[in-house]
Amino acid sequence: MADYNFNDEVTISFADIKEWMKRILVTYNMREDDALVVADHLATADGRGVYSHGAMRLPIYCRRFDEGGTSPTAQPVIVGQKAATALVDGRNSMGMVAGKFATDLAIRLARNAGSSSVSVMGSNHLGTCAYWAEMMADADMVGFCWTINCVNIMAPWGGMARQLGNNPFAIAAPRLTGPNVVLDMATSVVARGKIVMATKTKTPIPETWALDKDGNPTEDAEAGYWGTVRPVGDYKGSGLTFMNAIISAILPGAAFGSDVTDLYERPGDVQNTGHLFQAIDISAISDVDAFKTRMDQAVRYLKEGPKKPGVKEILVPGEIEANELQRQKAQGITYPVEVVDELRKLSEKVGIAALA
Amino acid sequence: MADYNFNDEVTISFADIKEWMKRILVTYNMREDDALVVADHLATADGRGVYSHGAMRLPIYCRRFDEGGTSPTAQPVIVGQKAATALVDGRNSMGMVAGKFATDLAIRLARNAGSSSVSVMGSNHLGTCAYWAEMMADADMVGFCWTINCVNIMAPWGGMARQLGNNPFAIAAPRLTGPNVVLDMATSVVARGKIVMATKTKTPIPETWALDKDGNPTEDAEAGYWGTVRPVGDYKGSGLTFMNAIISAILPGAAFGSDVTDLYERPGDVQNTGHLFQAIDISAISDVDAFKTRMDQAVRYLKEGPKKPGVKEILVPGEIEANELQRQKAQGITYPVEVVDELRKLSEKVGIAALA
Repeated sequence: MADYNFNDEVTISFADIKEWMKRILVTYNMREDDALVVADHLATADGRGVYSHGAMRLPIYCRRFDEGGTSPTAQPVIVGQKAATALVDGRNSMGMVAGKFATDLAIRLARNAGSSSVSVMGSNHLGTCAYWAEMMADADMVGFCWTINCVNIMAPWGGMARQLGNNPFAIAAPRLTGPNVVLDMATSVVARGKIVMATKTKTPIPETWALDKDGNPTEDAEAGYWGTVRPVGDYKGSGLTFMNAIISAILPGAAFGSDVTDLYERPGDVQNTGHLFQAIDISAISDVDAFKTRMDQAVRYLKEGPKKPGVKEILVPGEIEANELQRQKAQGITYPVEVVDELRKLSEKVGIAALA
Repeated sequence: MADYNFNDEVTISFADIKEWMKRILVTYNMREDDALVVADHLATADGRGVYSHGAMRLPIYCRRFDEGGTSPTAQPVIVGQKAATALVDGRNSMGMVAGKFATDLAIRLARNAGSSSVSVMGSNHLGTCAYWAEMMADADMVGFCWTINCVNIMAPWGGMARQLGNNPFAIAAPRLTGPNVVLDMATSVVARGKIVMATKTKTPIPETWALDKDGNPTEDAEAGYWGTVRPVGDYKGSGLTFMNAIISAILPGAAFGSDVTDLYERPGDVQNTGHLFQAIDISAISDVDAFKTRMDQAVRYLKEGPKKPGVKEILVPGEIEANELQRQKAQGITYPVEVVDELRKLSEKVGIAALA
């Protein structure tokens, strides 16, 4: 299993954590199918070991319902459509509700037109991009998901201030005999959470992780905390994050730059988050099984290459997460007790029984 | 101007270098319109200061015509098409000939369907991705161009061998009052050429540039030369380059991995290079001028941010190259004499007068 560092653990079955989160969401008058989408999304992130985007987010999502920042009942609508493109207004629905709506639409359009591109504005925190790209891969498509971040933590190259998010994106493609190959990456070298963690443990950080408030690389976690996350490939990652903002947010007229509303710090404010979903129907380009076979061959080719000393296996994007999801779906998801305690508190608040 | 390090320089007007290259290509029985596309592509790369992808490539392209690796006369064909997608067989034409064909098609499809995705196999070296993405931006679209590299120089993360290219891609979007914002990046921290240069000048390299043949970061240029280029964000860049290979090469059935044919080392062998072009018609999502105005605002927002000491201006992707192109189109393109000498030799060989 992956190497987590939980002090106290609680193990909950995938079905139970999903049901528990769904029940909480339904108390906010969220439609049951929408609640299931959000619950499945969060449980899947946890199952994949991506705890930063799982059940630990539910309390802030619910707080945003309480304070009016996000609507639990709103339904996305199509405001413009052509054969292979649509603009969706999330109408301030949950990001996952808008995400499901837009991804389903992208798949439907690509099935007819061969490829598609669906833009979303008026949304909220999208969760993990991999989930949406994989939904397209599961439909025998190549899937792309781009989104602007809900907080600015990166400086443009040459700058020093937090003017940009480390905007993440995902690309996914299916295989014949293995899990989807799916890359889900933010444009910073590491997540800001790792720098926060280093300030708590008072350990130095690699100089590739952060820039101090004067824009210089630093090994001091505290200096990195008050500075910005360092982009992958420096000016390349800074450029990539700006392009991601352009295609996911500026294109559909969603929030960018100083209009970006911090998910946590301003829970009563509407976010107007933007996303872009792109699908290519594999069958429009290639025999699907032939493509999936080429994917298997490509993965095998990489795995059969010479390994660096100490490396047991060369892994392709998404493989660690897919293995972890399979394991945790079978054996239950192991949570740090703090996350479960938060859900217990939330359950008490909304008046339902805790499922763990 | 940008800071080049040429020992001896020759300055040639944009029109002359383009005409000169066109004339050389026509002696290989290339159609005049195709020759103009290639010549414009190479002259534009030089004009932008991207000399690695300009006129210095013409000798190898012509050598590949001589040895049968690439066909100067072949015309790409559409082998499959839906409303928003097509598969193009380059039929071993020049990469720029296939690139022009596919980009025009992507624009035409997106104009009707709102977005499009065109896959290409059977192609050759594509040149600079920015050129194609900008062609879409000039048509008021958001343009994406992805391509597999023509040589393997990167290891998969955890590996040590040259199993992957540092596959480049470009994303471009237009502005109202400035040049297109266009990111064109390979997935390595720097081009391999910079490591080669450091071995010649016997200078150490930053440890972010290369991995030695055992897969470890190195500051020794020679060790980096015999090793692999280091991916941006390490495992992130390695994953991104694999995804690029999947969408540009494995999807349309082009060469990948051990089937990749080195552009220089095997000039008589067919390359079967693959590309992917994606277009989103801005007018399908937003009022075009409103989008371009938002682009201008976003660029201004970044430029108005606090600058790192010593930084004169915060630059957005493609800005250096756009300024340089404007300057060199007006004042002539400055070439290192070695590049011009190669063109002179080539002109003598094919029996035409040198234009400089």
